[in-house]
Amino acid sequence: MGVEERRQQLIGVALELFSRRSPDEVSIDEIASAAGISRPLVYHYFPGKLSLYEAALQRAADDLATRFVEPREGPLGTRLLRVMRRYFDFVDEHGPGFSALMRGGPAVGSSATNALVDGVRQAAYLQILAHLDIDRPPARLELVIRSWISLAESTALIWLDGRRIPRTELEAQLVHDFAALTAVSAAYDDEMAVLLRRMLKDEPADGPFTDLVGRLVALAS
Amino acid sequence: MGVEERRQQLIGVALELFSRRSPDEVSIDEIASAAGISRPLVYHYFPGKLSLYEAALQRAADDLATRFVEPREGPLGTRLLRVMRRYFDFVDEHGPGFSALMRGGPAVGSSATNALVDGVRQAAYLQILAHLDIDRPPARLELVIRSWISLAESTALIWLDGRRIPRTELEAQLVHDFAALTAVSAAYDDEMAVLLRRMLKDEPADGPFTDLVGRLVALAS
Repeated sequence: MGVEERRQQLIGVALELFSRRSPDEVSIDEIASAAGISRPLVYHYFPGKLSLYEAALQRAADDLATRFVEPREGPLGTRLLRVMRRYFDFVDEHGPGFSALMRGGPAVGSSATNALVDGVRQAAYLQILAHLDIDRPPARLELVIRSWISLAESTALIWLDGRRIPRTELEAQLVHDFAALTAVSAAYDDEMAVLLRRMLKDEPADGPFTDLVGRLVALAS
Repeated sequence: MGVEERRQQLIGVALELFSRRSPDEVSIDEIASAAGISRPLVYHYFPGKLSLYEAALQRAADDLATRFVEPREGPLGTRLLRVMRRYFDFVDEHGPGFSALMRGGPAVGSSATNALVDGVRQAAYLQILAHLDIDRPPARLELVIRSWISLAESTALIWLDGRRIPRTELEAQLVHDFAALTAVSAAYDDEMAVLLRRMLKDEPADGPFTDLVGRLVALAS
């Protein structure tokens, strides 16, 4: 194998191990053994576990960012629901590693790790803005989107801790939460009310947003 | 000064400095100077900056936990609004230190620091359960409360970054968000619907929950 090919293979092996168990429980020996090479050879490609962890995290971050990409056609609620499915696929595949990272894993506090996590959040934020067709969001919209992203993270973390609620329910719930948080902001701000109306105007009767509104009205009466 | 008295004074001085600037920018020399003692004497009481930081964080965590305490009387929405005011007081007082900690500060990744942050979240969670008068919460309620706590954290962090939205508006918004997230869950789950009705039954016409429902109904029509 060439140098770059071997590096890429090692990153793949490491990502799989770092995903299935908490990364601080994974040793270089184990990675070497899973890759079928010697421990010194691992160090030939990566100076230490942290650099291999960061490379694996970079690959996971790139992968996650591609899952946010969704064609800009059809109702917004349905688009967001498809993205939520792919998000939970990712969380499911990388469960223990995702938990360890987000709860403060071995490399948290490293500025490289923080920058990677922030990069994924920023990618999610920009995707949502693009779908809303907005270039310069008002502060209240930015707040709704960014705080909803953190809600999605914490919902996924709580799901991983025992999986007591079916993930399909949580995927739909997060779509509904997005509409609900926007509506709360719109209830007190005219600019947000205009945005909310635009968001909902092309929603079909059987889409997730319309379904939620119907149920909420029934609940309130 | 006695040993314990001197330690407490140092913790107070350190907390003030760690609150006003990012903790990694605060030096032991500066803490010594602000406390009016020599650098070696600081090391006599604390082995290093991390241990002093953890002690300051412990004091801040204890302080924050006391602000969650609210008498269990009167409408729920009004109680939560009072707690949100005290929460934003705290965030305001400790702005840069709060941001650095929550975004991955110098001591994040230390298990002591993570445990302190988790302890505060748990205190908030238990307070809310007590106010809802619930001992054994269903999984869906636990999810709503815990994910709302992370929403409150991210809302406070976004507020600190430029303060572009008045904090009183965000205090009310978080109260409304709590009701909205509960309502989304209640729209799809009977047990949560019962809980929501119980939550809202004693709300006065001029309380934050009733005000929100009125505005949302107006928005939907």
